[in-house]
This record gives sequence, C-alpha cells and structure tokens, in this order.
Amino acid sequence: MLPVETAVRLKRNSAGLIPVVVQDISTKDVLMLAWADDEALRRTFSTRQATYWSRSRGEYWVKGETSGNTQYVREVRLDCDADAILYLVEQRGPACHSGLNSCFDSEKLLTDDTAG
Amino acid sequence: MLPVETAVRLKRNSAGLIPVVVQDISTKDVLMLAWADDEALRRTFSTRQATYWSRSRGEYWVKGETSGNTQYVREVRLDCDADAILYLVEQRGPACHSGLNSCFDSEKLLTDDTAG
Repeated sequence: MLPVETAVRLKRNSAGLIPVVVQDISTKDVLMLAWADDEALRRTFSTRQATYWSRSRGEYWVKGETSGNTQYVREVRLDCDADAILYLVEQRGPACHSGLNSCFDSEKLLTDDTAG
Repeated sequence: MLPVETAVRLKRNSAGLIPVVVQDISTKDVLMLAWADDEALRRTFSTRQATYWSRSRGEYWVKGETSGNTQYVREVRLDCDADAILYLVEQRGPACHSGLNSCFDSEKLLTDDTAG
C-alpha cells in the first residue's frame, strides 16, 4: 500500500490528482499519461493492476478491464518534486484504445530533423 | 511552429497548460514531466530547445539555460486524446537538478516483485 510518509509528500493538483506516466518495462516505450488520486494509487499498489481516475467519466478505471489489455505494474517511481509518478508495466496487448501500441503513436507534431 | 489545426485541438488544463513527458531518444529513459503553454510549445518548435512553463516560478524556462544540461528536441508526439505531449530529446548531462540522470531516479515507491 501507499506509505503514509509518501502520501503526505505527494503534490496533487486542485482535483486531488497526480499525473502518471506509463512506460512499458520491456520496450521502454512511453505508453500513455493518465491520472490517479490516492484511492487509485492504493488500488494499484495492492493489486498491481494499473488503476486510474478517469477525468472524462468521473470514475475509477482499471486499465484493460473491458478490453483485456491490462497493465501489470512492476515498479513505481516518484519524481524529485513529488508531483509526477512513473509506472513501469507489463502491457498486455496494445495500450491505446485505438489499437496502437502506445497512445503517443498516433501523431507526430515535429519530426526528427537529424534522421536519414 | 505549432500548426494551427493542432493548436485548436490541444486540450489544455484550466491554466492553459499541457503536460509534457520527456524521454531520452537514445536510452529511452523517461527523464521528467514538465508543463507547456502555447508560447512554450511555439518556442520549443522554433528553436528545438525544450522550453517549459515553470509553475513554481511563473515564467518560461529553457531547460538547461543555467545548468547547461539542455534538451535538443528531436521529435514531438501528441497522444490520442490530444491532452498530453511526448518530447524525444537528446539530453546533455543529467536531466534532474539533483544531478541524477532522470527526475524519476530518486525514489521507488513500489519495487519489482518479479526480479531476481
């Protein structure tokens, strides 16, 4: 579970949420950015199934509960400012609801000018 | 520069900011999470030097301007919901002000239960 001393230090936004960067522990691809409150963190820590707070639906959301594309949380890191969290996960299937591997796979705003 | 059609779609928070996940393009380490408004994005796109909005200082912040630990932005991706951005950067020196490679290197809240 979430240690009390950590919970005290976490810097949440005005809605009580903290951003969670989700990275595939095998490929190191950044899969998505989601949000968690204390209860979502508590559920994630106790089950190791990535659980978030859906801001659009206003409810807890076990990633993959419907699609089967679950995230087993192998490691959780806190950043130096205590205002962002990183999950290292084993991703089953594609992480994005679009069917793409990562939610960041859909669109490049700026392309590599040093490639090729 | 930031394409108008992208700027229109971006989902900013109530302060006009969007979270930016920063990943080292070589090691694929997640280095930090920062925030940008439209002007910070515009500066980043035109200079390729990662520029953020510092919420604590209330000012634009060219990463590494003081420390020399700059981030050259090789690629920018938008996520499927248009509410988070990923920078793939060439990081010079350590990304974290603590001297660590990544801002997520300082503290593990949950350790790998399958290792070893």
